[in-house]
Formats: sequence, C-alpha cells, structure tokens
Amino acid sequence: MLYFLAQQLFDRVMTLRRRVALLAPFIAILPLAAADAADPPATPSAVVAQAPASAWRTVPAQDLLVMTIEGGKRVVIQLAPQFGPRHVANIRALATAHWWDGTSINRVQDNYVVQWGDATEKKPLPAGLAPTSPVDYVQSLGGMKAKLTPLPYPDPYARATGFIDGWPVAIDGEAAWLPHCYGMIGVGRNMSPDAGTGAELYTVIGQAPRQLDRNIAVVGRIVEGMTALTSLPRGSGELGFYTDAERKLPIISVRLASDLPETERPSFQVMDTGSASFADYLRLRANRKDDFYDRPAGGVDLCNAPVPVRPAP
Amino acid sequence: MLYFLAQQLFDRVMTLRRRVALLAPFIAILPLAAADAADPPATPSAVVAQAPASAWRTVPAQDLLVMTIEGGKRVVIQLAPQFGPRHVANIRALATAHWWDGTSINRVQDNYVVQWGDATEKKPLPAGLAPTSPVDYVQSLGGMKAKLTPLPYPDPYARATGFIDGWPVAIDGEAAWLPHCYGMIGVGRNMSPDAGTGAELYTVIGQAPRQLDRNIAVVGRIVEGMTALTSLPRGSGELGFYTDAERKLPIISVRLASDLPETERPSFQVMDTGSASFADYLRLRANRKDDFYDRPAGGVDLCNAPVPVRPAP
Repeated sequence: MLYFLAQQLFDRVMTLRRRVALLAPFIAILPLAAADAADPPATPSAVVAQAPASAWRTVPAQDLLVMTIEGGKRVVIQLAPQFGPRHVANIRALATAHWWDGTSINRVQDNYVVQWGDATEKKPLPAGLAPTSPVDYVQSLGGMKAKLTPLPYPDPYARATGFIDGWPVAIDGEAAWLPHCYGMIGVGRNMSPDAGTGAELYTVIGQAPRQLDRNIAVVGRIVEGMTALTSLPRGSGELGFYTDAERKLPIISVRLASDLPETERPSFQVMDTGSASFADYLRLRANRKDDFYDRPAGGVDLCNAPVPVRPAP
Repeated sequence: MLYFLAQQLFDRVMTLRRRVALLAPFIAILPLAAADAADPPATPSAVVAQAPASAWRTVPAQDLLVMTIEGGKRVVIQLAPQFGPRHVANIRALATAHWWDGTSINRVQDNYVVQWGDATEKKPLPAGLAPTSPVDYVQSLGGMKAKLTPLPYPDPYARATGFIDGWPVAIDGEAAWLPHCYGMIGVGRNMSPDAGTGAELYTVIGQAPRQLDRNIAVVGRIVEGMTALTSLPRGSGELGFYTDAERKLPIISVRLASDLPETERPSFQVMDTGSASFADYLRLRANRKDDFYDRPAGGVDLCNAPVPVRPAP
C-alpha cells in the first residue's frame, strides 16, 4: 500500500545488525512521540510524517487508473493531464472502453522498464482516440512557471529542474516535461515520428533513463503496487520481452477510479510541492546528517527526490 | 550471463510493436554484417560490439567473487581493491574461510537495495579481519589522476566525475570514491563511526542512492546474475527486511574465482575506460540520435553510463 512512504521515504538506514536497523525508524519517530514542536524534523521521512494536512493535495478520481493483475494485485497510476493532455485523454478513453482487460505484461527488462499492453498486436483500438505527435513530448511552461519550486542543483539532462503541481519537471526555456524517473509511466511507441496512442504503457524500474526524455511521452507515475511489477521475472527475449516459452502476466482490468463505485475507489494525496513541508523535505534529501549519515551530499538529483505520496487518511 | 551487454547496453528501443522492437537490434548490428569500416557506430551497443580486443581488460581472478544461491543461480561480483583495499582484503578472507556458505539474502527493499549476510547475527567472523573506519570511504586520487577519463557533465553530488581503471568515480579535490550506482556493491554497517567489516553486503537495485556516497564503503559491482537478485520478492518488514514469515533465500557458497578450479572459473573483461571505444560509448550515451531517438539529451549522469563488461571471449 504505502509504496512511497514505506519504501522511498523511510529512513534509509543500512546496518550490519538488523536489531539496529529496526530500531532506527523508531529513533526518527521519537520526536513525534515526544511531541516537542521545537525539534525540527531531522530526516525526510520525519518531515513527511509531520507534514500538516494543509501540505497535502488529494488526487482527483479521474486522474487515477486502477490496474488489477492476476492474483488480484492492484497497481494504481496517477495521470498527469497537464503534462500530456492528448495521451491522458486517450488513456482515459481506453480505460472506459475496458480495452486493457485481458491484455498482459509483456516485457520486463532489468534496470529499464516493465511494459504492458496487447501482446497480439491485433486488438482494435476504440474509435476517436486523439492523434499524437512529438510535439506532445513537451508542454509550455507558461502559466505553470508561477508554481515552480526549483531544484537548485545541476542536472546533466536539462537546463533547469524542479517541481510543479506535485510533479518533477525538467525545463529548457519555455518547454517543460516529465522526466523518466523510477515509477514514472511512459507511452510505448513505434519508430519516430510515431508518438504512441497510450495503449502500450511502461514504467521505469531502474536508473532513470533520462535519454528518453523528450523522445517519448511521460504521462504519470505509479502511486501503489510498484513492487508487483518490479519483482516480476525478467524477460529472456530481446529487450526483455517475454518469449513464447515465458508467461505474460494477465491484466484482469484497468479502470479509472472515477468509474468505480465510490466504496471501491482508492484515494491518494500528493505533497504540495509549493509547501514549506516540501521545502524541508528537499533540503533533507540533499543534506542527510544524523545518526547514520555523517557526510551530507550537498545535493540531490531530480529522480532521487520522489514527491511524497500517501493514501488519503 | 550477458548482464551488461544484453540488458544495459542493448539498443534501448521502446516500441508499440514487438515486431519492430525485435527488428531494431538487427538494424543496429547491420553495419557489422556489412563490414563497412567507414560507418562509425551509431549506438552505444554498436560501439561495444565493434570494440577491438585492445579496448578490453581481463579482470584478475582474485578480483572476482562467485556467489551461488539456492537453485544454482550464480552471481559474480567484481571487487575494486584500489577503491576499498581494507574491505576487499576482508571480503577475500571471508570467502576463503567459506564464511558466507549457509547465510542468506535477508533484505530486498524496492528501489533501494538487496542485502545478504548472516541473519542470525551470531556467526563468528574469521580471525584477522582488518579494522575499518570512515577514512576508508574515500581514496586519494593521487597517482590515479593520470588515468581519469572525465565525464564532462555536471553532477549534483560531487565536484567532478569520471572513470578510472574501468570504474565510475566521483571526485572532490584529492578524494575519489565509487558511487552508489545500480549494481554496485556496498558494505553494510552499524551506526557511524562503524564502517562494516565486509561480511554484510548489498547491491543497489534502483535510482542511485548517491546520498550514501562517502557514508558507507562501496567496493565492487555485479557483473553477472543481477536479475537473480532484482526479481526477488520485496521484503515486507521495516526497510525491506524479510519477516520471519517470509523466506530468506539461502546462499550455498561464495568463493573467490582464484580459489576455484581453473575450469570452473568465470572470466570477465571490462572496457578500458581510457580507450577510444569508451570515449565513443560515452559520447553516444549522452547523444542518442538514430531511428528511435530524435532529440539527443546532450548529457548523461555517472550512473547512466555503466562501464561495458562482457564474459571473456
């Protein structure tokens, strides 16, 4: 459930002794128990745990895609319509048409991507999908500029980076785009200038392949169930595709949360990247100094400061 | 087998159609078949495929650690004595003492690390291990400076980065250290100033947690069998440790390749990071422009340009 909380934001303590490893999170949480408001949080996870309700934004149900895979495991994807409007419109149409039901996970390439869609390549697409092209890979920074929280460290792939509306963004002049970070969702495509419809999706499962930025559409991120994908057997075919002798994991259904009965809808909150809590979080992601960390890095890369996400309390 | 070759260096083509995805590598390899020496390689994988024998360095057998896990799967680790001499001496002593035989993989934390060692925390260590301390986290650049191939892109974690002796390195003044990239091997430790003995090891399985650099010893990398670790079920305990209800995968044996009969020794070659081939490789990792990539990134990060490794031909 608590993918980002439990696994990415947790106090990242590496220890020889498990007993100490288990103790460490309690040390980090002690200030909470002591309720000493004068002690500022010392770790990113403590910032997240102590962030006030006002620092969180609830994700609209029409931006959540719920994928159920064989065995009943649930993967929840948050869509980013402001960064990929045409692709997101198509993805919503595909979900509403139940297009992914009965498709499968077809590719698991280590340190790269897990990809899913129609392995037969013959399933007709629903009518009315929006045409896409490489112009969709970037969006105009425009009115979003006022909401930018810059990340003040150099990036080898973009002139500037930062966070807008709860998303990591890379920037070059007036162009902004979502980067290929761990857990982000991209749209598979054919050779350029094809830009993909949204029917074939993948998520990043390794070191951020940022060379794909602006060469392919990034349209969202996984907010729950990532480990159901990352722990899958790697495919032995070219590019990590499963061979005929290997088993493609069936996808039972993919639905927009807004199309589910209200009692079955998942609900998530993303930290407001304009909040004081997020500023604290970024500062500590870049400067760990505590019982475990002696030497603060003095910086952090865009994909190593994942925006905190939590199930709505 | 061909971990880096088949999975990291392969033409990273993302396509809607599997047929095209399967075709793409052949396109990249065509110049080889045509044997047209006038055509410079256009992709990182083509550079690797065409690199002359003189661009490769064979890893000494005493620098290879062969770990066999349940089911007979083999994981091969290359040690970096020049970057962690005390820890590597300890690791060799532990392997020679067969210390890891019967231990287990105890922690799999998504987007972070897989960690192994003695889950009981009671197994006595062999006598004579070298004492270690935080001074071991960095090495003096000194005489290695002449061998440095700089990576000419900014890094948020270090003043400079580059490659020495087949290894990625981060640099600050006269200090050099191995970064926490995907597949690198670190030494688990207790709270600082403990620096670990080398008995508890981990490998990185997600976005490079570079905040750990200079806070923990990095002493090698996995050159074969990475996917046997990355596809393991994630642990549900704190920090991804397996709970008592979960199964810790047994480690059958860990040996130095130099202690194995010659017929059983694996042998690997690492690309010479001072070679013209490696310069070509770096240039293309940073600037993809081909049938799939329209927009070269113009840069690459230290952990997204893994040094090519191959089984010795």
